[in-house]
Amino acid sequence: MEKVSIGIDIGGTNTIFGIVNSKGDVLANGHIPSPKENDAKKYVTDLANAIKALIKKSEQYEYLGIGIGAPNANFYKGTIEHATNLPFKGIVPFVEMMKEQFPDMGKIAMTNDANAAALGEMIYGGAKGMKNFVMVTLGTGLGSGIVVNGDLLYGHDGFAGELGHIVVSPEGRECGCGHFGHLETYCSATGIVRTANELIAHHNATECLMANKSYNELTSKDVYNAARKGDIIAKNVFEITGDILGQALADTVHILSPEAIFLFGGPVAAGELLFNPTIESFENSLMPVFKGKIKILPSKLRLGDAAIVGASALAVK
Amino acid sequence: MEKVSIGIDIGGTNTIFGIVNSKGDVLANGHIPSPKENDAKKYVTDLANAIKALIKKSEQYEYLGIGIGAPNANFYKGTIEHATNLPFKGIVPFVEMMKEQFPDMGKIAMTNDANAAALGEMIYGGAKGMKNFVMVTLGTGLGSGIVVNGDLLYGHDGFAGELGHIVVSPEGRECGCGHFGHLETYCSATGIVRTANELIAHHNATECLMANKSYNELTSKDVYNAARKGDIIAKNVFEITGDILGQALADTVHILSPEAIFLFGGPVAAGELLFNPTIESFENSLMPVFKGKIKILPSKLRLGDAAIVGASALAVK
Repeated sequence: MEKVSIGIDIGGTNTIFGIVNSKGDVLANGHIPSPKENDAKKYVTDLANAIKALIKKSEQYEYLGIGIGAPNANFYKGTIEHATNLPFKGIVPFVEMMKEQFPDMGKIAMTNDANAAALGEMIYGGAKGMKNFVMVTLGTGLGSGIVVNGDLLYGHDGFAGELGHIVVSPEGRECGCGHFGHLETYCSATGIVRTANELIAHHNATECLMANKSYNELTSKDVYNAARKGDIIAKNVFEITGDILGQALADTVHILSPEAIFLFGGPVAAGELLFNPTIESFENSLMPVFKGKIKILPSKLRLGDAAIVGASALAVK
Repeated sequence: MEKVSIGIDIGGTNTIFGIVNSKGDVLANGHIPSPKENDAKKYVTDLANAIKALIKKSEQYEYLGIGIGAPNANFYKGTIEHATNLPFKGIVPFVEMMKEQFPDMGKIAMTNDANAAALGEMIYGGAKGMKNFVMVTLGTGLGSGIVVNGDLLYGHDGFAGELGHIVVSPEGRECGCGHFGHLETYCSATGIVRTANELIAHHNATECLMANKSYNELTSKDVYNAARKGDIIAKNVFEITGDILGQALADTVHILSPEAIFLFGGPVAAGELLFNPTIESFENSLMPVFKGKIKILPSKLRLGDAAIVGASALAVK
């Protein structure tokens, strides 16, 4: 019997799950809507039923466990705590509730989505064999999973790795967390759109390819497409994004001394447009002892199923 | 026979060493000048002879090993690499050279001074029993030793913990490392003097108690003494220092999620003058999930022998 585990990714809109084998292949998958109201019991029941149905159709496997990636997940306690983009209030004992649904499943564990992605990179991706690296996920926000001596860094209470919330510009942009100048307000899919809009306004760039879309319509992919068509503003957006990201990653290296940093998420598709200015700023910002030593690499996980694959790794690690 | 180890601290001017017991008491000590020229062999011979003389006078102990704290020390390789405030050029295989001098000594290891201090705090000081904490040393610069899961964080190549060189003010003050706006240019004994001089100039504060000393004469202790006498500029210096330090420590928490942060070094003697604004800024800068949870504490190591005690801990850890 092939050994597999189940990975679950609880996103703001959808919850996706899949059966993952030891190579990191998703053998079967499914999805349900993420919770719309503060009723964790109903949501867990719906999720468990959907997974049980999937398992029933896939009885040829031996199930090792379930790994869950969720916002504000506490690895130590198995709880979701004060998640800002889920409707749950307070602290939800999610792993305990899942264990009631799956009493025979070996291991059930949860962590946040960026930590899950880091685990996926380490077990199935480009960080195989690495003991010290950082995974940076660029999406609506900026998340990070930090691996130290081969283990995820959780810190004292399980919430380490909030790299998106270090200050890069005191009194800078307002962050979703209520503070100002945090890294993710500049370096994320959202940050890219914010920079584009600021630049268009600053230059009154009416001819810019992006000036015909509303703030809410514009996406980081639009900025990428405009840059590829030669739009100067869009190119400048990636320069600025890379400039800030590179410096913040240098700060991270000064603290953690990793072997490599992996970038993951939609904006990574911009390739050299993002990586070139990031690496340039990174190298310029590093102390001599680190210069030329640390690789900044695109994640080798597939964007579509990385969240499931990463979460599933939690059950086998 | 009482079990002891030898701690060595190689500073920019003096090298101090001592025999330390399992309680962290320094039973005997000595010192030689730190190297003035690029002759590591001569320096190691001088140092070894001085230590051998001390051991000869203290034959009643069982010696477990030697721990060395030095700038730019690489724990993994036992080397001093490109140290900016020592005259050694390139890479010095320091531990190897010491092993030739002390072939019968059990364990000889080295790390940088801030890591040694963190180890001392963990084994003999206020961090006893803590598994995740950060030690911040405020001196000429700002160093840090980071403990994760009960072990010092060295990272991939042994140079983790350079917290003094994270950017807190892009395009800010020039740092000794050649970059700009690094934390230690604001939050260190030197940073305090720089802030004092800037404020005096900014306000043309001719009446200020510190305005009669040259830049090179003024020390952070003078600023402390002036603040205690009610000098408004000096008080403001500590407000600004604490404000910047608190924010940087919050960034550190967002990455590492420690249980506590210890402050060590001369400026810590300022007590509430430094701690109050630091803690206020720290709490204001923390994400909700961390607020009110992480202690900022003064080190419990004695300033005079902390470097020796910390280094000695390396031989028994």
